[in-house]
Amino acid sequence: MFKFELIARCPRTSARAGVIHTPRGTIETPVFMPVGTQATVKAMTVNELMEINTQILLANTYHLYLRPGADIVAEAGGLHRFMNWHRPILTDSGGFQVFSLGDSNKITDDGVEFQSHIDGSRHFFTPEKVVDIQEQLGADIIMAFDQCPPWPSTREFVQAAVQRTTQWAARCRQARTRLEDQAMFGIVQGGNHRDLRQQSADALVDMDFPGYALGGLSVGEPKEVMYDVLSWAVDMLPAEKPRYLMGVGSPDYLLTGTAFGLDMFDCVLPTRMGRTGTAITSQGNVVVRNAAHARDSGPLDSQCGCSVCSGYSRAYLRHLVKANEILGHRLLTYHNLYFLLELMKGARQAIIDGTFPDYYRQHLPLEEVEIYR
Amino acid sequence: MFKFELIARCPRTSARAGVIHTPRGTIETPVFMPVGTQATVKAMTVNELMEINTQILLANTYHLYLRPGADIVAEAGGLHRFMNWHRPILTDSGGFQVFSLGDSNKITDDGVEFQSHIDGSRHFFTPEKVVDIQEQLGADIIMAFDQCPPWPSTREFVQAAVQRTTQWAARCRQARTRLEDQAMFGIVQGGNHRDLRQQSADALVDMDFPGYALGGLSVGEPKEVMYDVLSWAVDMLPAEKPRYLMGVGSPDYLLTGTAFGLDMFDCVLPTRMGRTGTAITSQGNVVVRNAAHARDSGPLDSQCGCSVCSGYSRAYLRHLVKANEILGHRLLTYHNLYFLLELMKGARQAIIDGTFPDYYRQHLPLEEVEIYR
Repeated sequence: MFKFELIARCPRTSARAGVIHTPRGTIETPVFMPVGTQATVKAMTVNELMEINTQILLANTYHLYLRPGADIVAEAGGLHRFMNWHRPILTDSGGFQVFSLGDSNKITDDGVEFQSHIDGSRHFFTPEKVVDIQEQLGADIIMAFDQCPPWPSTREFVQAAVQRTTQWAARCRQARTRLEDQAMFGIVQGGNHRDLRQQSADALVDMDFPGYALGGLSVGEPKEVMYDVLSWAVDMLPAEKPRYLMGVGSPDYLLTGTAFGLDMFDCVLPTRMGRTGTAITSQGNVVVRNAAHARDSGPLDSQCGCSVCSGYSRAYLRHLVKANEILGHRLLTYHNLYFLLELMKGARQAIIDGTFPDYYRQHLPLEEVEIYR
Repeated sequence: MFKFELIARCPRTSARAGVIHTPRGTIETPVFMPVGTQATVKAMTVNELMEINTQILLANTYHLYLRPGADIVAEAGGLHRFMNWHRPILTDSGGFQVFSLGDSNKITDDGVEFQSHIDGSRHFFTPEKVVDIQEQLGADIIMAFDQCPPWPSTREFVQAAVQRTTQWAARCRQARTRLEDQAMFGIVQGGNHRDLRQQSADALVDMDFPGYALGGLSVGEPKEVMYDVLSWAVDMLPAEKPRYLMGVGSPDYLLTGTAFGLDMFDCVLPTRMGRTGTAITSQGNVVVRNAAHARDSGPLDSQCGCSVCSGYSRAYLRHLVKANEILGHRLLTYHNLYFLLELMKGARQAIIDGTFPDYYRQHLPLEEVEIYR
């Protein structure tokens, strides 16, 4: 029912192409997963997401628990029916949001007490509660509850988070009731400490999850730190399971993560940038608001095949952004997601064709990181 | 090149069905024109507008003059190319906006000095300037510059506005250079004073415009006042020219305006209501935010054939509205426009079929206005 199939491996890097089989269809990896925090990928319809070949969406447990409430989603027939998206969905554990959005949270070994960022009401998340919520939401892939330490944190804090995350993962596995149609991934913590990562990975791998995520990265640490962690942490995860790098969505991180052997990525970056007026293009980021584009009849990206680039000029898009028009948010979001999905599709094909290192260099000519094994 | 063809007349009311021929295609009347103030119908793409059979859009001279500037639109090849909409467009005269949005405006017989609502900069609109701007924008139908008095105004003020509007209309006709591909409509003022309306209409009809608008209505006056004016003012306009009621977009005003013999209507109402969370339905307005819809798995309008009503529940739409998601604005806007365009399409067919009075009563069972001739 849930199966990961390896299709091809890059001979020089750790990149690999695969297929994740789920009850709601297959996902070709490496894959970027657009984020639909509140049961909608901001500014996009599900039809548009299908148009650009989105294979799987992410939705946020923390947000949906607070609003509209997991019971309302369950009553609607689950998240897929609620939002009218019938391809795979992954829900996160809420761990990251509880620590980054929830106010004045109190962590104990039992769980986390936090205040809603919406109305200040008090809530308590335990591993069991988080599993229950994710079962009500009904995503195809769900995540074990983890403690995600901020950057920077002391070694002691990270160590305690690893221990808690391990215990919580075991409790999450135990609490599950929808074994037949939901796959649960474990989340490896450990910051940039190799021994702590190893400890976290070993414990989770022992529990035999069908997939593993690297958490606690892309939380503000320097790029070199993340790349360093990736260079040794990915190998701690079983090769025959999908590996998911959480919170990553820029072209450099996506392709470098792919080179290090990761299969799944998610980030609000492309949608957030779309709403704030920045386009991700083959020539780098374009700040659409800049006066330079006021009379530019050319597209955002002349190498892009999306409907925004074929239908609209930079001059028009700049006007929409300056006038704060919803259509500006929509068109830039659409382009940014299309761009990243095409980037990953191209990376996958390059892995299959045995040309991934060339693809990598062509897209990131200036990236200085050792991606070769 | 520009021609109005009458197809059918209702035997009992003044309603009529027609076709406006323009260089960019035909418009079947009566017609509701969605408003694209800043060269975009808020929250909609041009593809979605075509999907719901939008025949003609309105865009605002005042707004586009201030931002991005008529020169930038002209450089982009005109409004159609700029916004990627290749069906007919009508631009208004800017008169209404100068008086309602522009700060501290000073009216003289020569024109209006006003301050931009965006940056406070000072500008001067004359009839000649307004024609020049509209020629740069390049709409298929353009409007003569008018003085639109607020409600309420003294008779003296309305009288002066009529005189100025008449003089300005003559100057607008004179100033035109794009005679071959733009049709200019005159705007009748006169408030609710029958003699002033007659005076205004007579003067404009003498100038032989290819179409006429009733201005100065839907500016805050009671419904009975508007209906009273419509009951005698429409007959002051030539039957063989299209008649346009400005600023009207609710089902009751649209169908009653149609019954009184008007052919064209525009209003921001359906798009604004969409963004503020209200749906126009066959059962009246639905405030989507209301708690009553929290667990309602039904559509906005069970009689509506739009993709929003077939794909999404009230529960989901309420969640989107409460979470202030762009998708909520999008879906409600889409539904509202679809609803009004279908309403007008049905009215037109009923006129052709000779059943318009039934159609009117069926849609407005409680409306108390004498629509029969």
